[in-house]
Amino acid sequence: MRVYDVIEAKKHSRELSEEEIRFLIRCIADGSASDAQIAAFCMATLLNGMTQRECFLLTDAMAHSGEVCKRPDFDGIFADKHSTGGVSDSTTLVIVPILCSLGIYCAKYSGRGLGHTGGTLDKLESFPGLNVDLTAQEFEEQIRRVGGAVAGQTKDIVPADKRMYAVRDVTATVDSIPLIASSVMSKKLASFADILLLDVKYGDGAFMHSPKDAEQLARLMVSIGRAAGRKTMAAITCMDSPLGDGVGCNLEVRDAIEVLQGKKSPLAELSFYLCVKILCAAKGISQEQGYSLVNEAVRSKAALQKLAEIVQAQGGDPSAVFQPSLLPLAEKEYVIRAKAEGALCVSAMALGRACVLLGGGREKAGDLVDHTVGILLKKRTGDFVSPGDELAVVYASKENPQAEDMAKSAFQVRQERETYPPLVYKFIGSEESVCSD
Amino acid sequence: MRVYDVIEAKKHSRELSEEEIRFLIRCIADGSASDAQIAAFCMATLLNGMTQRECFLLTDAMAHSGEVCKRPDFDGIFADKHSTGGVSDSTTLVIVPILCSLGIYCAKYSGRGLGHTGGTLDKLESFPGLNVDLTAQEFEEQIRRVGGAVAGQTKDIVPADKRMYAVRDVTATVDSIPLIASSVMSKKLASFADILLLDVKYGDGAFMHSPKDAEQLARLMVSIGRAAGRKTMAAITCMDSPLGDGVGCNLEVRDAIEVLQGKKSPLAELSFYLCVKILCAAKGISQEQGYSLVNEAVRSKAALQKLAEIVQAQGGDPSAVFQPSLLPLAEKEYVIRAKAEGALCVSAMALGRACVLLGGGREKAGDLVDHTVGILLKKRTGDFVSPGDELAVVYASKENPQAEDMAKSAFQVRQERETYPPLVYKFIGSEESVCSD
Repeated sequence: MRVYDVIEAKKHSRELSEEEIRFLIRCIADGSASDAQIAAFCMATLLNGMTQRECFLLTDAMAHSGEVCKRPDFDGIFADKHSTGGVSDSTTLVIVPILCSLGIYCAKYSGRGLGHTGGTLDKLESFPGLNVDLTAQEFEEQIRRVGGAVAGQTKDIVPADKRMYAVRDVTATVDSIPLIASSVMSKKLASFADILLLDVKYGDGAFMHSPKDAEQLARLMVSIGRAAGRKTMAAITCMDSPLGDGVGCNLEVRDAIEVLQGKKSPLAELSFYLCVKILCAAKGISQEQGYSLVNEAVRSKAALQKLAEIVQAQGGDPSAVFQPSLLPLAEKEYVIRAKAEGALCVSAMALGRACVLLGGGREKAGDLVDHTVGILLKKRTGDFVSPGDELAVVYASKENPQAEDMAKSAFQVRQERETYPPLVYKFIGSEESVCSD
Repeated sequence: MRVYDVIEAKKHSRELSEEEIRFLIRCIADGSASDAQIAAFCMATLLNGMTQRECFLLTDAMAHSGEVCKRPDFDGIFADKHSTGGVSDSTTLVIVPILCSLGIYCAKYSGRGLGHTGGTLDKLESFPGLNVDLTAQEFEEQIRRVGGAVAGQTKDIVPADKRMYAVRDVTATVDSIPLIASSVMSKKLASFADILLLDVKYGDGAFMHSPKDAEQLARLMVSIGRAAGRKTMAAITCMDSPLGDGVGCNLEVRDAIEVLQGKKSPLAELSFYLCVKILCAAKGISQEQGYSLVNEAVRSKAALQKLAEIVQAQGGDPSAVFQPSLLPLAEKEYVIRAKAEGALCVSAMALGRACVLLGGGREKAGDLVDHTVGILLKKRTGDFVSPGDELAVVYASKENPQAEDMAKSAFQVRQERETYPPLVYKFIGSEESVCSD
């Protein structure tokens, strides 16, 4: 068998056998398949698709292409929540402390921001001194001691995915549902969470624009997780507008802390919803019981305390957990004001791009991120505004008219208040049947 | 503009603009596009196709991606014949001397054999000492002096095609009609022939299996040649069986010499047909007049003499031109005999593969070729045979049961004589309208 033959088969839309898929991934991981061959395979897959069976086999082969994280040898339920990427989405920083404070172990591998979306690892580094590069041993030890850890996956985990993603990123082959599903799920299958909750986003600020596409991706990922024996669920959620009030690392960490201090916002609403879904699956309780546990974890400050413990366990200074204003904001402030009267509409995509232009996000992997810059919303989608009303403040490290213009373009005032989609479009529970593609 | 955007456009089946195509080819030639990006572009093109206009622009951009051969500054008509590749196809060695002896300049850039098909440069090197690596100056000087030259294109000609072909070869993206057409025609447009005759082969031993596919490719190439202002024609010809009696370099050169000595065979029939088409286009004469000129060039031995001149001009020993048995054959002879009575059918593909197994062809670019090995047919497709009849002799340099078995598999004896397709399926003249894709 040659890599050539596997590409040839996919080019002719033939369903690949398990042997062909395992051979391909082995060749990608050991370097014997060239970048050009990976690119041709990915483009053929993007245009010709994959069956659910092929996609599971691909994911499983990728998951086992390098080291696999060993399940710790103590009892308990391990949960993981994964978002496909949004703007002002710091749900992880809210969910992990809440669940840990309620006895659910959170073994959370996260990523960095890229393009208009932020990344949890960057946000965590807003806490001075915090280390996200934990060894497998440090990761396990911290989970045992504190109940949770959030770290980056080491380079020995899913090496096939790392090569494939680097190629896809420059060959216009990122937006393939089977390739996205196998990339996300290979990292999950290489780890040991018992319960996986996927937050699949659609809308203006997400990679999937329609809820239908997001649902297709969600169902495929859920089918892969279940085929691998994991309790897998997915929420399909709207990402038209930012979840929190801030876009930019320090602003988003402030948002998460404020939610744990009791503030209400779409970020709180979605985080609590996802916590409850995980609690129900983990403990077999009702939604009402779940909400009551979550509300108590926040009211009692147990979750806030847990966040401080996690930050400290990873070497960070937790002072800001109790005083979020300690996280500094850039000096130059630029206020965006309403020019007309009507209902406001805020674009997540434009704010995400503005944050990148401010230096608070990454154009490409490896770029440095400025944690202090960003945009703080004063009004949200659906709010009625009058001319002169303060809509947002842009925090910049220097004069930056391009970023300011991009931020301004995020705000539109409309005559009529529209009907806005609900935060959660659909939920795929761990028991519900997942139809085949 | 980025290479990424051009791939993205082709992925979405959008027709590329002239600017996009020129940008892409410039990036391929200067190395700023990666092999992975070339592969993704080629796979998207293979699966989504190209319009005739895109294909012409692509070809033209490739033709001008490096050096271009300058038209010599003496008067005359320059002709080129190009075959898409077959088995026992030494028409070039017959056509070039005939046309040169009749006053048509033949400026012929040829290639090497790859896979089951042979290459003219390898066959020419059957003449001891012959050099196919001519500089542009040597090439022009030889044409002026002798009337014809057959050489390999230098590495500075169409560099974009060289990179693209190397990528296509390992990524299962060779068999795309627009990519084949642009690869072949870019080399023609980078040269200076006034008259181009394309011999587009279909059938068992060709890259195109059906005459319909071959016709589609032929029409696309003719449209490109005409758009570039060249008098372009195409013959769509059958490659189910070998054209000459031999498969393998020395055997095929012997075939060509025997045709120039007056022997009749399908090789002679096709070569004369193609010569006549070029003569008609060059001189504005009738087919009858053309055939009469060709027959006289052979009868008078003027063409044979011209072949000797060309061989000598390129530094080769021309003795074999007058005594073909001087070209040595490998020592081990293995005779293939008929086992049944009936009509014979000979597979070009199986013989081409057998020749590669004998060491007479190339598995991959750069392999060395043994000129002495091959298969000599004693019977041809359509001949009636009886058990024990000698069908062919395999010339091998060592015991090689695998090659012998492959050669044997080329011969099938059938109860009934079938209807065999004509040698020329269709001819697209230089004046005939070429419909759009």
